[in-house]
Amino acid sequence: MNKSPGAGRGPGRRPGVSDTRERILAVARRKFLAEGYQRVTMRAIAAEAGVDAALISYFFGSKSGLLVASLSLTTNPIELIGGAMRGPLDALPERILRTLLSTWDDPAYGGPLRAMLDAALTDPAVHALVKEMLEREMIERIAERIGGVGARARAGMAATQLAGLIFTRYVIGVEPIASMPIDELVTRLSPALRALLRPARG
Amino acid sequence: MNKSPGAGRGPGRRPGVSDTRERILAVARRKFLAEGYQRVTMRAIAAEAGVDAALISYFFGSKSGLLVASLSLTTNPIELIGGAMRGPLDALPERILRTLLSTWDDPAYGGPLRAMLDAALTDPAVHALVKEMLEREMIERIAERIGGVGARARAGMAATQLAGLIFTRYVIGVEPIASMPIDELVTRLSPALRALLRPARG
Repeated sequence: MNKSPGAGRGPGRRPGVSDTRERILAVARRKFLAEGYQRVTMRAIAAEAGVDAALISYFFGSKSGLLVASLSLTTNPIELIGGAMRGPLDALPERILRTLLSTWDDPAYGGPLRAMLDAALTDPAVHALVKEMLEREMIERIAERIGGVGARARAGMAATQLAGLIFTRYVIGVEPIASMPIDELVTRLSPALRALLRPARG
Repeated sequence: MNKSPGAGRGPGRRPGVSDTRERILAVARRKFLAEGYQRVTMRAIAAEAGVDAALISYFFGSKSGLLVASLSLTTNPIELIGGAMRGPLDALPERILRTLLSTWDDPAYGGPLRAMLDAALTDPAVHALVKEMLEREMIERIAERIGGVGARARAGMAATQLAGLIFTRYVIGVEPIASMPIDELVTRLSPALRALLRPARG
């Protein structure tokens, strides 16, 4: 993702281009958040941003490209997970759980992330993106951090736990998970996450 | 779900009605499985079953009603989970995992169940159904079986693990989870599931 929203800034940038790009991203983000990925059209975003729809294609390639770019305006899941990796290994489960829960509990982040999951079930490009993010950014990063025999398999098992927490709490809203305080979830889930990350006894 | 496909059978049934109903269900099930919930229309099912679309509404009320009825033709998730509850408590995690995995690994079951999850994200009626199934049939049944302090919260935590396994393996196809043999998944996940079900130490 080289195209950060500020990439056009600098001595040589043409004034107007990055402003237009940022305006499109702001409209897209608000609409994806309010209406969900499926109901939003490129045409509606173009109209609201006051630009030609062809310009959106030129900047972002596709609707899923626009989704990704509009999400990176406010949140970068890669950075968040990276941050949780730092610190002592024995408290890694607690850090990962707390980072994930406080991010998704914040409507500014949770809304766009939820829109991306919705989109993953129906748009092959977004599906591939979510799969890649889970494999490369969550599982591989955890595997690198824990190391040892079967690190990738153990990290994969941890990912099932984390994905399930998100799915039940934020996507479906299953009780008693949806209304449980973050502290209680961290306390209840971290021993299991620790067991999943632990190397198998031979 | 009183309307089982065979409910029309009996001394007083009008011949033809239950045959028509079963034909509609068979077409619906095949189409939901092949095309996913969203792309299938009531009109297309009616055309293929050779009936008037109004008859489908009469029998099943709505597209989500038809989905539920067509799923119950081949699988009853409630019965499956109920079966895993029976047997010694100390092997409950292994039984639940093996039941869930062997059901979803079977295309005849996994396809329709996956269609239901897809639908849950966009159809409020199916969303409510999935939420209710998770709360009443999975969490409450596990809570009843394990008993003790905070049984419902502990069962809820187990549900996050199980839902996450389904989401990563069957919905997104995340590796290494998607291609891992059932035996390995049961071995790797059951200690964590056991930790989630265990009463908290005071």
